[in-house]
Formats: sequence, structure tokens, C-alpha cells
Amino acid sequence: MEFRSRESHREWLQGQAVLPAGFRVGTTRFGFEPMEVPRRATMTLTLLAVDAPTPDFAAVFTRNAFPGAPVLIGRGRLMSPRLGAILVNNKISNVCAPDGVNSSERLCAEVARSLALQREQVLPCSTGVIGWRLPVAAMLAALPEAVNELQGGTILPAAEGIMTTDLYPKVRRVELGGGSIVGIAKGAGMIEPNLATMLVFILTDIAVPRATLRGLLPKVAADTFNAISIDSDTSTSDTVVVLSSGNVQGVTPEAFAEALRTVCGDLAEDVVRNGEGVHHVVKVTVCGAPDAELARAVAKAVVNSPLFQCAVAGNDPNVGRLVCAVGKHLGRHCPGLDVSRCRMAIGGHTVFDRGVFRLDPGLEGDLAEHLKRAEMYRSGPPDEHGVFRPPVSWPVHERSVVVSIDLGTGNASAAVIGADRTHEYISENADYRS
Amino acid sequence: MEFRSRESHREWLQGQAVLPAGFRVGTTRFGFEPMEVPRRATMTLTLLAVDAPTPDFAAVFTRNAFPGAPVLIGRGRLMSPRLGAILVNNKISNVCAPDGVNSSERLCAEVARSLALQREQVLPCSTGVIGWRLPVAAMLAALPEAVNELQGGTILPAAEGIMTTDLYPKVRRVELGGGSIVGIAKGAGMIEPNLATMLVFILTDIAVPRATLRGLLPKVAADTFNAISIDSDTSTSDTVVVLSSGNVQGVTPEAFAEALRTVCGDLAEDVVRNGEGVHHVVKVTVCGAPDAELARAVAKAVVNSPLFQCAVAGNDPNVGRLVCAVGKHLGRHCPGLDVSRCRMAIGGHTVFDRGVFRLDPGLEGDLAEHLKRAEMYRSGPPDEHGVFRPPVSWPVHERSVVVSIDLGTGNASAAVIGADRTHEYISENADYRS
Repeated sequence: MEFRSRESHREWLQGQAVLPAGFRVGTTRFGFEPMEVPRRATMTLTLLAVDAPTPDFAAVFTRNAFPGAPVLIGRGRLMSPRLGAILVNNKISNVCAPDGVNSSERLCAEVARSLALQREQVLPCSTGVIGWRLPVAAMLAALPEAVNELQGGTILPAAEGIMTTDLYPKVRRVELGGGSIVGIAKGAGMIEPNLATMLVFILTDIAVPRATLRGLLPKVAADTFNAISIDSDTSTSDTVVVLSSGNVQGVTPEAFAEALRTVCGDLAEDVVRNGEGVHHVVKVTVCGAPDAELARAVAKAVVNSPLFQCAVAGNDPNVGRLVCAVGKHLGRHCPGLDVSRCRMAIGGHTVFDRGVFRLDPGLEGDLAEHLKRAEMYRSGPPDEHGVFRPPVSWPVHERSVVVSIDLGTGNASAAVIGADRTHEYISENADYRS
Repeated sequence: MEFRSRESHREWLQGQAVLPAGFRVGTTRFGFEPMEVPRRATMTLTLLAVDAPTPDFAAVFTRNAFPGAPVLIGRGRLMSPRLGAILVNNKISNVCAPDGVNSSERLCAEVARSLALQREQVLPCSTGVIGWRLPVAAMLAALPEAVNELQGGTILPAAEGIMTTDLYPKVRRVELGGGSIVGIAKGAGMIEPNLATMLVFILTDIAVPRATLRGLLPKVAADTFNAISIDSDTSTSDTVVVLSSGNVQGVTPEAFAEALRTVCGDLAEDVVRNGEGVHHVVKVTVCGAPDAELARAVAKAVVNSPLFQCAVAGNDPNVGRLVCAVGKHLGRHCPGLDVSRCRMAIGGHTVFDRGVFRLDPGLEGDLAEHLKRAEMYRSGPPDEHGVFRPPVSWPVHERSVVVSIDLGTGNASAAVIGADRTHEYISENADYRS
């Protein structure tokens, strides 16, 4: 779909956000003072609960060498026979903070007490500033309100509660066999696979055995959440969790897998489209590679090239930077590769073929037009503090810049979704603490 | 030295720029119309000539898989018994352009004719837009003027002639044994080793045999020009050339090597300090690594992290992004490494030790102070077109942000110089064609 207005987007979101049977969500928001800096902050607690603790859950976590306490705990929770609730907080990610694991466990114990669960049946997730300590006392005081708010019907409060610098909540839903899969995602900066600064929660009422879910999720994540990049910074907290309440029987594993892939693929693109300061989503496909790993790495080199990102931001079809980024990666990682049959296109227009650029003023105009069409907004003037802010808070369309690269040396391929680099990204990250 | 004013910097530059005996430089500037876009452009031709063609020269080139025609030709020129001149143009880099090699060779032939050399004794170098064709006819017409301008005394016109988006010419000089080594560098964006978008020309009157130079240059380049990064984009045209006129005898190879290392190290730092939109130079040292390659890669991961770069730009001691960047690299490339003894410091202040952050409001203030002290300027408001421009065109000081990382797992170390990421970088690269 193409979004046209804030209102039509909101209406569409509400339709996506229908909660599957067997789940409830509740949130609460409160102010506190971080121990590390002398200023006030606000946090939202989000609680996702299954009516009956379920054995059918799966999760994948960041590969960052300094993972957050919730990730360390979460890896252990995979051994739990059942999961009954997820407690999420934004503002502070509880990474390498003093006594971080105990803080998260303390909160899980309190959730368990409130919901008549065991502590090991509660999964903690945190996102936000790295290094700060969780305000445990303030969180414990706020928790009863989140419990009190628990209700079925819509997942929208949770999609909003987990946001940090996200401009809008991200929700995707697929119906099948009388049930549904609904996913929400948080993530706007520090986005590059394995995974992104991303928390993703996927709830389904379709019955899927634990073993099936655990076999499926890593594969689906590899092709979706691990195939996006906004700024190449793999976060310390990335987490994707899937829970099944098991209420709806009769859906085949194949149909479920396809639907899950759709939800994850759509959410991954949503995360990029709502990336910090993103004006253009860029989809790069690399084919003709000797192996899929190289194909993906080349695509990543393109979407992570600061110069290519800036050119796209300026609607400048600077094809030299595209070829430079590809050549940088190939030259460093496989210097012997025969690149003489390499071909590159933007928006379907060939710009480079067999070692030579194919440029003329007419093509230049076509390429610029393709970039302009994919632009979601332009930077306005900064405010009185010199800060750039996006003029829209919803995705005005779903168009993308399309880059195709044929290495001409094999049969493997990969697709990656990235974005441009703009003043809003600098404004967001030179001042803000996510 | 610490530069204080535009005038004192200019005076210092002139002192650095004294040409060694046996060399002359000449430049000329002219307008032309590129074949690829309907607008006017300006190019400077720079000629560096040795009074007598010399066998004692060495060069290293980019490893980008799509190198420019001058790089392809330059690799062949290493076989030439002698080199007599270097012809450099800015504005167009002659990379993968139709008939690119013939265009450069045609220009070399004309230089050779003018200076009574053979074509193989002339090295071509180009920097600027990738993909466009050289305006050969206009360049041939301009060449006599550059030849006419050839003179000894100062290398400053050449240092200025090779600039693209550089704010100021970069020249470094060391005297030894009655002779000198003088180097000039061009490079402001597309800067990451192997090499950078960098042209570096080093002239010396000290006699150094060809074999010695060729053994030395790659090693020195690895520790200097290949240890910097502004935007991780390895250019298609990077070239470092050293020429000796051989006039001054009696300097030992060891003394020469040390002086060359000084010139290259200083120039490399100059290139970063004058990087596009750079407000802060960031020096990252990694020690305690199992090998030097990993140490360097971790340091690069830090200086190339967009989020860390933005935090530095904002004088925001967001230490979480530092730890995230280190963890991102280690988690991806050596997931089994024991990081439990890892320690990180900024400006000498420990911020992370044995898996835990060491943060408090006092430290926060100290770190912010360290960042502010290293800041060269602040962004002013953008102009009426929304473009940010640096308010200074010289390095106001030579201070840096100092980051130290001890991985605690070995004895290898490496040092890398990088920079922050600012609105001026975005302005420069979202509109400008280098």
C-alpha cells in the first residue's frame, strides 16, 4: 500500500494491530532521575502477557560481544519450559551496567508475582542508553499500573510503548487459517543486523510447536532483520521473540513459515523506513556472486557507504560512489575476483557495464527522477537551536531507490535494505541519548 | 605546533613548502564543459618535474577493484627505468571512463614532448568525480601554461593545485643531513586506507636507492596513510609517490626512513584534520590484542561508527556507543574472544573496565570537557540554501580526542586516526561532486 496521509496511516495501523487470541498488553509511563546524569528522564514500561504460559516460543539475540543484561538473561530463558510474559522498558538498555542482571531479574520476579508466574517464565527486554543503570525502584513502583492496564484487543499501546527515537509505531499482521500473526518492532538508529537496535515481538494464536518455531526463526531473521542496515552499528540489545498462544489449530508449518516471513520482512522494511533521518529507503540486490555471503557483503558495503548515502539524500545520481563502494569491498576481500563482467543499474537504468560507465545527460536526468520519486520528505530549515526535525511522522509512501548489481561471476544473490544519510540523522545523534 | 590564526598558519605553511633541490612545479587553471552534465566546471593541472629523470622512485596505489586509469598506468610505470614528471589533475578522476587509459596516455605523451622525456617517464594522477571522461582537448590546450609556470623554490602552488574539497593545502617537511623531504597531500572525503582518496607526492633531494625506497614506502604507508579513516570509503584513485632527485649524499637509510615516517604520519593526520566537515580528530589506540590486524580493525570499527562519530560531534560522551562499536566488531569477527578484561578510556579517564561501565556525573563532565577542548569549530547556521560551511579554512589547533582500548587478551596493538560526523559532511556530500 502507499500511505497518503497521517489519518489513513493511523487507520491502517489500527487494522494491523488487532491482537491474536490469548494475549494481553499493558503499558505505563513515568518520570525518574538517572544515576549517571543530573537531569530528568521518562520511561515507558510495556507488558506483554499470554493468558496461559506457553512452551511454544523462540528468540534470537544480538551477536555484539557486550550484550545487555536482558540478552544474557534471555539466552537462559530459552531453556524455560514455558514463557508467560515479556517486560520491556525503553530509555535505558541495561548494558554492562553495575549489577545489571540482578536488576532485570528483580523486575522479572515482581512481574511473576503479579501474574502468578515463575520468574523464569518472564523475559526482560530493554532498549535505550547503553551504560546507565535501570531505575529499579521507580520501575517497581510503576509496574502495578502496567499490570492493571493489561487488556486484549489491540497491540498498538505496546508498539508505541517500546519506541525510543522511532517516529511512529511499527505493526504488521497477516491472517491465516482463522488465526493471525502480529508483530511489532522498535528500532530507529544503531541498526545493522545481528540484529539491529531492534526489539521485535511477534505474537500468534496459531499453534506452532516449540521446535518448529526455533528452527524457523533464525532462518527468517537472516533474510529479513539481518538484511537491513541504517548505520552499520549492531546494537547490544537486539532481540526478536515469537510466542504462540496455540489457540488456533490446523495451519501447516509451510503456510505459517510463509506468513511469518511476510510479517518479518515487512517489519524489517518498516524499521528502515522509519530509521533516524531517513529520506530514501534503498533496496540493493546483488546477483551473479560466487556465494551468498559475498553478495550480501557487497550490498551492505553499498548501503553503508557514507558517500553513497549522502548522494542519495541529495537526489544526486553520483554513480561513481556506487562503483567505488562495490570496488572497495571487492578489492579488500577478494582481490583476485574477475570483475570484468560486472554490471550495475539504478532504477532499472544501466550505469556501469563491463568496466565502463554508461553516462550521458539524459540518463543523469532519469536517475535523478528515480531518486526524487523515492524521497519521503526534504529537510526544512533547522530550528532555533540548529536542530533538524522530520516534517512528517508517518511513512508518506512505500517507494524505494532500487540498485541492482550483477557481479557476473557466479549464481548466488542477496538483497539488503538500507537508507540515505541526512541532517536529521546528525541532529538526532549529535545531541540525543537514545 | 598549535595553529592560532590564519596568518600564522599561512606563514608556517610557507616554511614547510620549501622545495628540495632538483625539482620544479607549475600549475594552471581553466574552465571546461564536462561531457556528462550540462554545466561548467573548473580544473587545475599540476606538473611536478625532476630536473633529471630519476631511477629512484616508488609508489603505492589503491586496492579498490575498480581503479582509475592513472592507477592502471601507474602500476606499469613502476617498471620504467626512470621517472621525470608527474601530471596531476583535479575535478575528474578518470575512473572506468570510456577510453580512459588512452586519454591519460595522450596527456603523458604531450608532457613528455614538452619536457624532452619519454612518455613512460611521466606518471599521470587524477582525482575528482568518478565516471566522467577527462576533457583531453581542453587539458592539452592548458598544458603549455603549466609547463611555462614550472619553477623551483616552493611546492605550495602544487599543494593548492591538487585540492578538491580540501579547505587548505597540506604540506609537511623534514630536514636532515643537508637535504629535506617535502610531502603534499590531497584528500578530504572518501578517506579510508588502502589508501584514502588521497594523492600524496613526496619529493626529496636525499639520495635513496630505488630498491630502498620501494621496500620502505609500503611499510610506512601501512602505519600512516592506511591507518586513517574519515568515511570508510576507499577511493578508486589513491596514490602515494616518492621521488628522489639524489642531490644530497650521506644520509643513512635508517635516518631517511624515520624522517619519511614523520612526513607521512603528519600528512596523514593533516588529511583527517582537514576531512570534510571534521570538527574533532579522534585518535584510537587498541592494545592487548591477540594480533595487530584485529587491533587495527577494532580501532577502525570505532572511528567508522556513525553513532560514535555523531556523539563526538555533539561533545556528547556517549560511552555506550564506544562499547557498542567495539562489541559489534568483536562479536562478528571473533565471537569466542574472552573480553572479560577489556578496558576503555577517553581522554585518560577509564569509562569501562572488566565488563562494567564506570560512570558518574563528575566523570561525565570531565569527558565532555575533553571533547570540547578537542573541537576545532562549531557548526554555525546554514546559509539560505540550507548548506553548512566551515567557518574556518585552517586548522585552529592540533588537539585530538584520545580513545584507548585495552582488549586484555594479548600483546599486539595499533593506532588509527579518524574523525567525527557533522552537518558540514552531509552538506558537502549531498550536493557537491568532488
